[in-house]
Amino acid sequence: MEKIKLDNSTRVFPMPMVVVGAVVEGRNNYLAVAWVCWVNANPPMIGVALGKGHHTNKGIREHKEFGISIPSVDLIKAVDYVGLVSGAKADKSKVFESFQGQLKYAPMIRNSPLTLECKVVTKVDLPSNEFFIGEIVGVYTEERYLTDGKPDIKKIRPFMLTMPDSRYREVGEIIGNAWNIGKDFQT
Amino acid sequence: MEKIKLDNSTRVFPMPMVVVGAVVEGRNNYLAVAWVCWVNANPPMIGVALGKGHHTNKGIREHKEFGISIPSVDLIKAVDYVGLVSGAKADKSKVFESFQGQLKYAPMIRNSPLTLECKVVTKVDLPSNEFFIGEIVGVYTEERYLTDGKPDIKKIRPFMLTMPDSRYREVGEIIGNAWNIGKDFQT
Repeated sequence: MEKIKLDNSTRVFPMPMVVVGAVVEGRNNYLAVAWVCWVNANPPMIGVALGKGHHTNKGIREHKEFGISIPSVDLIKAVDYVGLVSGAKADKSKVFESFQGQLKYAPMIRNSPLTLECKVVTKVDLPSNEFFIGEIVGVYTEERYLTDGKPDIKKIRPFMLTMPDSRYREVGEIIGNAWNIGKDFQT
Repeated sequence: MEKIKLDNSTRVFPMPMVVVGAVVEGRNNYLAVAWVCWVNANPPMIGVALGKGHHTNKGIREHKEFGISIPSVDLIKAVDYVGLVSGAKADKSKVFESFQGQLKYAPMIRNSPLTLECKVVTKVDLPSNEFFIGEIVGVYTEERYLTDGKPDIKKIRPFMLTMPDSRYREVGEIIGNAWNIGKDFQT
């Protein structure tokens, strides 16, 4: 079939929804983010790309710390809200109950099933975004989200953003085992 | 409920599966990657974090170009295979039928419903990984993956990796409209 060119900004793969927490002007602030991925295995590091205009960036630049909360579907309305409204205009410190780990400026959401606290290692300055790379120095959960001592995605129920339809979606059914289903593949 | 600390390398959110294409030692090579995200809005840029030991990195370093193919669930076995087997040991150029856009060293998978060709803008050197940031200079699809001229995720059928269960999963059901469902949220 013939290939068609689309606009270079077309984004299709499913993106994980997280909430980035920072302390901005003395106040906890939260921002919904889907541009996030792990970037280093050892030590574990994560990266988040935030538009330069965001209020949150100021706090991360100042304190070089941030929190990442992986929300469950139960928190969907609050997560969407902190993506809609800027911390420059509204106090978002009360949207979630916050908690701290060992870092002072990496607020995390108490009701979020899995959260990370991160120390900024480096920041990549791009034309419209800043990509903050953080070393993960603490990961927090609760007993009720574990099965046999491991985080259980069916209990955590994270969700995703898909584009260009702008929908939040659940994690779907299992279709195969990674590092396994391709073992018998013949070229 | 009381918080429990987990290992800092705990990874839970759903990660999109893509295949990174590069030309290594004159041959097309493909690698399955889940550590990928958009990093800049304008111009559109994407980032991929590859373990330093990967064969693919050599080609990206040399030519400063790479392709990103977003595979559908139909390609799951081949995608898993190119994540299991190194291009240093096996010729992975025939696993997929390749095609080129305007770049010479950014091979893409012809049977992949959506593909991107990227020019490296910068590379972030991290302890165990390299994070390649590429400007997207071409996006390709076919008529059969579009609805009303836009990519349709139900036709494209991308899939994800979840950890720590090491499963590939489909994109799940819609649970809300982004930038909308939180409009009536009250703090």
